[in-house]
Amino acid sequence: MIIIMRPGAEEAQIERVVDRVRAAGLDVHVSRGVERTIIGVKGASHEVRTEPFALLPGVDDVLRVLKPYKLAAREFHAEPSTVNVRGTVFGGKDIVMVAGPCSIEGEQTLREIAGVVRHAGAKGLRGGAFKPRSSPYSFQGMGEDGLRIMRQVADELDLLVQTEAINSRSLELVVQYADIVQIGARNMQNYELLKEVGATRVPVVLKRGMAASLEDLLLSAEYVLHGGNEQVILCERGIRTFETSTRNTLDLSAVPALKELTHLPVMVDPSHASGHREYVPSLALAAVAAGCDALLVEVHSHPDEAKSDGAQSLLPDDFADLMYRVRAVARAVGRSV
Amino acid sequence: MIIIMRPGAEEAQIERVVDRVRAAGLDVHVSRGVERTIIGVKGASHEVRTEPFALLPGVDDVLRVLKPYKLAAREFHAEPSTVNVRGTVFGGKDIVMVAGPCSIEGEQTLREIAGVVRHAGAKGLRGGAFKPRSSPYSFQGMGEDGLRIMRQVADELDLLVQTEAINSRSLELVVQYADIVQIGARNMQNYELLKEVGATRVPVVLKRGMAASLEDLLLSAEYVLHGGNEQVILCERGIRTFETSTRNTLDLSAVPALKELTHLPVMVDPSHASGHREYVPSLALAAVAAGCDALLVEVHSHPDEAKSDGAQSLLPDDFADLMYRVRAVARAVGRSV
Amino acid sequence: MIIIMRPGAEEAQIERVVDRVRAAGLDVHVSRGVERTIIGVKGASHEVRTEPFALLPGVDDVLRVLKPYKLAAREFHAEPSTVNVRGTVFGGKDIVMVAGPCSIEGEQTLREIAGVVRHAGAKGLRGGAFKPRSSPYSFQGMGEDGLRIMRQVADELDLLVQTEAINSRSLELVVQYADIVQIGARNMQNYELLKEVGATRVPVVLKRGMAASLEDLLLSAEYVLHGGNEQVILCERGIRTFETSTRNTLDLSAVPALKELTHLPVMVDPSHASGHREYVPSLALAAVAAGCDALLVEVHSHPDEAKSDGAQSLLPDDFADLMYRVRAVARAVGRSV
Amino acid sequence: MIIIMRPGAEEAQIERVVDRVRAAGLDVHVSRGVERTIIGVKGASHEVRTEPFALLPGVDDVLRVLKPYKLAAREFHAEPSTVNVRGTVFGGKDIVMVAGPCSIEGEQTLREIAGVVRHAGAKGLRGGAFKPRSSPYSFQGMGEDGLRIMRQVADELDLLVQTEAINSRSLELVVQYADIVQIGARNMQNYELLKEVGATRVPVVLKRGMAASLEDLLLSAEYVLHGGNEQVILCERGIRTFETSTRNTLDLSAVPALKELTHLPVMVDPSHASGHREYVPSLALAAVAAGCDALLVEVHSHPDEAKSDGAQSLLPDDFADLMYRVRAVARAVGRSV
Repeated sequence: MIIIMRPGAEEAQIERVVDRVRAAGLDVHVSRGVERTIIGVKGASHEVRTEPFALLPGVDDVLRVLKPYKLAAREFHAEPSTVNVRGTVFGGKDIVMVAGPCSIEGEQTLREIAGVVRHAGAKGLRGGAFKPRSSPYSFQGMGEDGLRIMRQVADELDLLVQTEAINSRSLELVVQYADIVQIGARNMQNYELLKEVGATRVPVVLKRGMAASLEDLLLSAEYVLHGGNEQVILCERGIRTFETSTRNTLDLSAVPALKELTHLPVMVDPSHASGHREYVPSLALAAVAAGCDALLVEVHSHPDEAKSDGAQSLLPDDFADLMYRVRAVARAVGRSV
Repeated sequence: MIIIMRPGAEEAQIERVVDRVRAAGLDVHVSRGVERTIIGVKGASHEVRTEPFALLPGVDDVLRVLKPYKLAAREFHAEPSTVNVRGTVFGGKDIVMVAGPCSIEGEQTLREIAGVVRHAGAKGLRGGAFKPRSSPYSFQGMGEDGLRIMRQVADELDLLVQTEAINSRSLELVVQYADIVQIGARNMQNYELLKEVGATRVPVVLKRGMAASLEDLLLSAEYVLHGGNEQVILCERGIRTFETSTRNTLDLSAVPALKELTHLPVMVDPSHASGHREYVPSLALAAVAAGCDALLVEVHSHPDEAKSDGAQSLLPDDFADLMYRVRAVARAVGRSV
Repeated sequence: MIIIMRPGAEEAQIERVVDRVRAAGLDVHVSRGVERTIIGVKGASHEVRTEPFALLPGVDDVLRVLKPYKLAAREFHAEPSTVNVRGTVFGGKDIVMVAGPCSIEGEQTLREIAGVVRHAGAKGLRGGAFKPRSSPYSFQGMGEDGLRIMRQVADELDLLVQTEAINSRSLELVVQYADIVQIGARNMQNYELLKEVGATRVPVVLKRGMAASLEDLLLSAEYVLHGGNEQVILCERGIRTFETSTRNTLDLSAVPALKELTHLPVMVDPSHASGHREYVPSLALAAVAAGCDALLVEVHSHPDEAKSDGAQSLLPDDFADLMYRVRAVARAVGRSV
Repeated sequence: MIIIMRPGAEEAQIERVVDRVRAAGLDVHVSRGVERTIIGVKGASHEVRTEPFALLPGVDDVLRVLKPYKLAAREFHAEPSTVNVRGTVFGGKDIVMVAGPCSIEGEQTLREIAGVVRHAGAKGLRGGAFKPRSSPYSFQGMGEDGLRIMRQVADELDLLVQTEAINSRSLELVVQYADIVQIGARNMQNYELLKEVGATRVPVVLKRGMAASLEDLLLSAEYVLHGGNEQVILCERGIRTFETSTRNTLDLSAVPALKELTHLPVMVDPSHASGHREYVPSLALAAVAAGCDALLVEVHSHPDEAKSDGAQSLLPDDFADLMYRVRAVARAVGRSV
């Protein structure tokens, strides 16, 4: 931490800052310049807040040298970490494909879709039983019935189950049925839910919030890691910008940036980001080329009858075709599927 | 709802759309142009989804004429509604001032601050006992102890208590102690929590999310109203933009826009929006001039010792001065404090 | 400037940085911590680039202590500066109102509108003769004929003329006819045009670009000031965000923030920001309460026949009413009109 | 164009709208619903403005069915168009690589860098002789001397020259020396410059502005096309968002979206978008996988001595490595380099 005093700060102000730093148990080095005095603070960790120092009289600015998260940081864990879900490894050489409908709508439809995605080579089945919908008049999900159907179908086809929890009650149910619990973009800063997920030992996919910076995302991951749950997969799914030709703006720079900042595996969801089925294959291939570890793709056999997000769901044939192309790009960048 | 067919859409495609509209129990009017056929749908309410029609073959676009929310809409309730909290009316001629520290940190400090805000003319005391903090290493609030202290101090001074609930458990406690439950920006799309708040009969301040459009905010309000809780106050507190000289960008256009779109009272929080104590008075006065019904302001007697958000908290004298200036601007726009 | 070395940076790397700093004629102070070495650079001005140092091996980050602009900075000119345009002072106690149509469309219409704004108390007449339109099919302005009409009408009514220049050729004409040259949001980073404006001695209103931070705006102002033209008025007119209920998001925090960062007068344009006539009065009053020095408002006597921006133009009666209310709010904050 | 009347609009208001539509020479179809009357307008082209109709009494909304641009639209030119620059084709099967320094800084450095990019397989040399810099204290480019050097070096190595014009004067020079004129992000809405470029017959790379939607970009392209210059290449280079870990947010969804909206070739600039050399290769590969037609990459042999943008410039070896990987990904998606 570096504390920069204003030009012309008084000696008494400098001393008060130094006293405060020492009172916090930290070491200090004062460098007096012609115009300004700069106070270097040694030993300050991610747990020390900069704000109280910034508010002292005579202080111009306080600069944080260390990142505000620790367990999620690459400095803490130099090697990429992997998340092993019943033998499927996220963060290894293989790019893991998780696909399925937006919502679980019934057993027959799900079995049909699950068959398609399994046959094309996906490892996991996605689908929501608890849906955070922006309108109270929209379909809110099948609840536990949906989870039961999903588990049943996935077991028949040897697929992993990834599904969303939206509060304590649904989390309790989800951990009973699912292999991977998903925390959606709208709950990325629902810290109470993150604490509860941190207390479980279930692998978690944490989706980036629409207004969340990468630092915010990593701080949310830190909540889960801090709770003792080390099986965290981050998911880029688009951020909110002024552009309206897509539902959100997929931020693929997040892939190399996260690879530098953190050791956690990175998944990309091109379906929610674009909101248009036509753009999903391009973005999925781009995500693989950018270096992601997993893809999350919406597939539906009858999108125009889907209860949510039909517009962005791939048709079965399109998904099989996408898998073929994903394999080619994966090979080109030294990965496999 | 208006369905626009692509140029050259086939007759069979048009018929399929018409059949689907009728199957949904809606009336239809087909207008065949030289280039395009346009299908007007009559009787479609906010509960009808446009997406299934948009996905039918030959359809170019589906335009919604009605808003996706109803109970929150001005069309539904032409007169401004008011929220009466133990005699203090939000949405009337008086601009209601709610002020206090970011977090409850102890009885003595709170009493000191509460005395200041009461003396200057505030009607409500703000303060968090449950804090949604972006870092797990930050102070997370005093919990029920904080609520107890807050109630005690507020009762001594005849102030209303406004405090945040962040999940089911905290909501249960908050409704026991508080007069107004606050839903924070990070939980604006925590729909499960909104449903629970909708099931209570406690007045609620619903803060706009950092990436939430006004339509999103009104849909979240719709959750609460739909649950039967009509005492909803909306709160603008800044949205996330590229500008970094302030913490968030206070969107004061939201005030006249919300006044047009909805009947609900509008509060403005200039403290969280700016993140800088120095900018709070200007923005508070601007909010009053723009037509807000209430202000939410952070005040702290020792900001450099505050456990959160000290940088944006006004000092006691500054708050008293602000109240004086708020009164002057309120009078200038035909309001009172 | 402060150069932060990576943990474990080698001695040779530190020496190379120190040599580079000295080679740039700057003084240096090295502070060796347990984990990191921090190099303080003394005497670095706004003209020194941080990037070359940031790229040296072993360097983690380079922090700029000084702002990248100088002439525009409050540090350089502690007192607010004023711009005196033929006796009308921007930046003084009076809030200056400039109003008129978006485009000059003809003499009769302009005379009608100018009469309205003059009678209501405006000091300046706005109107574009050269229009930067997003579509090549839109009306591009009357050119020199428009300027001639504008000058004529303004002289009859004793109004100042504020009009936009969009390139060298139009600037040459504008300076012959106008009292204030306006640089529009789309040209805020047209640095060649800024240099040409800097070479004139005509007062200039510099509008903030839709994606420009306050720092960008002040750097653009620096171009004009650096050219020797000190008569610069900054204008906030809305930035681009995800919110679609208004055309742009008026950033009124910019008013107190600019007052802190710079000595230049600040104008606010609520018309372009909102894009809706209905929201203009609220935002105009809010801008005055926030502390702006001038307002720029679109007025049209027949908005539905306007060749551009009719939707955001006030009607004559609305403008007269607004002026009345602006006076009241100005008085409430110790200003006059 | 579809005009939606307010519920309860009066017959006289409906008639006035119909009269106005007919006065504009357009055909009309009135559909009276239970709640609302909807007026379909036939024959309205991209040249008809919706605003004057929107402002008529009783009108709720006016919906545009046609896009506001024509020559740039896919509807106008169903097949992808190609731009042939002295035998190098943009928009064909080959992905064209253009690389080089940010600024031309001298003959020797440029020859060194040009040799590297040519040897690795690039077809074009980039480099700025006229630089739009945000600070007036930054290096502004070598001007015509830079162009002369660039032409000389490119001719020696059989490379195309792509360089930026920033106003009329520089455009006059650039067209004499360059094969491709570049219009930078900051000038994307400098419509006067676009008109001048439209009047030349030189191929142009038009970069997307930082706050420009795809529709804005296509409207700017329309200016050039409308002037008669059909050789337009669009370039995605990142938009401005709240995320700060990259300089801008590269919007790769723009690639499939532009491919749907327009027939023009699409280039991607991963260097300016990210601002970090480390992220450039990932984003370049992603752009190829997403379906771009060309890449624009910054390369410098001594980035820490570069006069601009060294931080995002690839080193020679990194560029050679990138070309190798670009070839692999291109093959995987059925393209070549």
